[in-house]
Amino acid sequence: MTTARILDFINTQRPEGPCLVVDLDVVRDNYGAFRHALPDSAIYYAVKANPEPAILSLLASLGSNFDCASVAEIEMALAAGATAQRISFGNTIKKERDIAKAHALGINLFAVDSHEEVEKIARAAPGARVFCRVLTDGEGAEWPLSRKFGCVPQMAVDVLVYAHQHGLESFGVSFHVGSQMTKVDAWDAALGDAKRVFAQLAKQGIYLQMVNMGGGFPTKYLRDIPSAEAYGQAINASLKKHFGNNIPQTIIEPGRGMVGNAGVIKAEVVLISKKSDNDAHRWVFLDIGKFGGLAETMDEAIRYPIRTAHDGDEMEPCVLAGPTCDSADVMYEKNMYPLPLSLTIGDDVLIEGTGAYTTTYSAVAFNGFEPLKAYVI
Amino acid sequence: MTTARILDFINTQRPEGPCLVVDLDVVRDNYGAFRHALPDSAIYYAVKANPEPAILSLLASLGSNFDCASVAEIEMALAAGATAQRISFGNTIKKERDIAKAHALGINLFAVDSHEEVEKIARAAPGARVFCRVLTDGEGAEWPLSRKFGCVPQMAVDVLVYAHQHGLESFGVSFHVGSQMTKVDAWDAALGDAKRVFAQLAKQGIYLQMVNMGGGFPTKYLRDIPSAEAYGQAINASLKKHFGNNIPQTIIEPGRGMVGNAGVIKAEVVLISKKSDNDAHRWVFLDIGKFGGLAETMDEAIRYPIRTAHDGDEMEPCVLAGPTCDSADVMYEKNMYPLPLSLTIGDDVLIEGTGAYTTTYSAVAFNGFEPLKAYVI
Repeated sequence: MTTARILDFINTQRPEGPCLVVDLDVVRDNYGAFRHALPDSAIYYAVKANPEPAILSLLASLGSNFDCASVAEIEMALAAGATAQRISFGNTIKKERDIAKAHALGINLFAVDSHEEVEKIARAAPGARVFCRVLTDGEGAEWPLSRKFGCVPQMAVDVLVYAHQHGLESFGVSFHVGSQMTKVDAWDAALGDAKRVFAQLAKQGIYLQMVNMGGGFPTKYLRDIPSAEAYGQAINASLKKHFGNNIPQTIIEPGRGMVGNAGVIKAEVVLISKKSDNDAHRWVFLDIGKFGGLAETMDEAIRYPIRTAHDGDEMEPCVLAGPTCDSADVMYEKNMYPLPLSLTIGDDVLIEGTGAYTTTYSAVAFNGFEPLKAYVI
Repeated sequence: MTTARILDFINTQRPEGPCLVVDLDVVRDNYGAFRHALPDSAIYYAVKANPEPAILSLLASLGSNFDCASVAEIEMALAAGATAQRISFGNTIKKERDIAKAHALGINLFAVDSHEEVEKIARAAPGARVFCRVLTDGEGAEWPLSRKFGCVPQMAVDVLVYAHQHGLESFGVSFHVGSQMTKVDAWDAALGDAKRVFAQLAKQGIYLQMVNMGGGFPTKYLRDIPSAEAYGQAINASLKKHFGNNIPQTIIEPGRGMVGNAGVIKAEVVLISKKSDNDAHRWVFLDIGKFGGLAETMDEAIRYPIRTAHDGDEMEPCVLAGPTCDSADVMYEKNMYPLPLSLTIGDDVLIEGTGAYTTTYSAVAFNGFEPLKAYVI
């Protein structure tokens, strides 16, 4: 996943300090793959995954729409060339004054998952289109592990009726099958939920028009993942299964799937040491860690591929940790990471699949370390 | 812990958005309490806890020394008026070029916990003083929960001999009993370890002069904590017990204990909602969360006191979450937080005990949200 262009940039520019390098050609390819796999779905890029202006400009020029989590992200999408009609304010938790700001910028599509949020939108963006997020884990269970976003389908019906009563356009339903979803059929049960919400509202004379099928499309880390094509086939089959000949407008919101494999972090080995003379393994400390952009290693959740100039040499499991004076700043310890025995202090390492959810997660200045720099090429 | 000065600042200035307000009078009092409790120990403020220039300047003027984790923190301490002689480069994980920069700035006290780090310092800061960090949890166990920093005591002896052989001044031993340590006798076993390192090196003709007793001094959250006085008495008793009439120079490195209770975060309730009509509890969403400065709520570790204008009204346990589109951005869910039933959207809440480890942990721009602002009064 370290493209020739990225490798060339790092080797010729020799950027100082840890940095992310993003190859726009990969983003363009990813956009094309989603476009081809789901030709009838509108693509709303999840800006939070990586809001670098050059990425937003490329996607805007390719015709992408944008899913924004805040007014700042809306302003970035507009600055990149998107029109307000191509932007969704997809956060279900919004200050009323931010809804008003978005409304003033021309935004007309808002996410809700509660009566309270409907009331705010009715006041601050009268007449706007809203979609209600439904709690689902894509496995059919109504109570997924994280319940932060969405409400149960029956409540979604009530929320959308409430929106209608408040003069809003009850436009659709959204769900999210879970990040880095590697099962292509994970959308099926959620689409069934969506269809039932459509049907219940239709009985009340409210005709929804859109299903926002969210993100969750994975990026390749150590294991292979299904192709965009495979997701497209499974999702289209489920749409037909549940909606028959009345398939509504659909939206997808790829973030990780759009930029994850387009970026590589160049980091440096700061220290390799042991804790005792007879320690069974080495500790490898990099100049980037959990607070410098690798927040998704929390609970060792995401295991990034790591390349070194010594790949092919004998490997040994190591604890991998960051440079700060924080004992939580350890990436892989329970499940140690195999690295070459010949790796030495001062060596560069390339952390692949880091195009999404790294730069913006970076701490402002924890321990005085600068936030992660990014170069988009 | 919300002082009259902080309350007055918030009420008169009405700062927009979430922000931290730090009362310097509290920092001054904390410094005085440490000074009085441990009059023979040098205080090295852990800059990483809160590097606001006004805090550093106050502490420099009071005579404090500074424990720095990076060259940037060293430069901040110097800018605040500290001389290089009052600064320790306390991170055991340093790039050799950063050691050289620190050396050029006049820094002469460095932490190590490995032979490899000794070699870097010998090359980049020849002749400097070093202290070796020992793995201890203060309970006498040599393998505390987090092993990121330090080496076993026997290896510390070897590392300090190695430093001596490399022309460095083997100056002392350091340890850290663990953050938010509420047992005043937690330093005893570690001081016993330190004494044994002193004794073993003396047999080889190397006479250490300093014990760096680290931080770990708590701040008051929901439960009461012992006074600085109580820590001082226990630590002084342990020093006498282990070192007798040859008590060495000692250092303490309070961070949380110096600034934690000096700061209050003002936040706003963005949404209060339920996930279903018969949901047993409410979700309260603030405009600050794990990625906006409350990173220490990770695993619900630190439970901050929260004040509202409705305190005294009937309370109900709530899930408390942040404003981002990240399902991990939930502060208290397993152990819900009691909040007034009368709390409503738009209300301010005051999160107390947030003077340490908040602003610098804040993400650069996750979801487009600005990093936490700070006002030092």
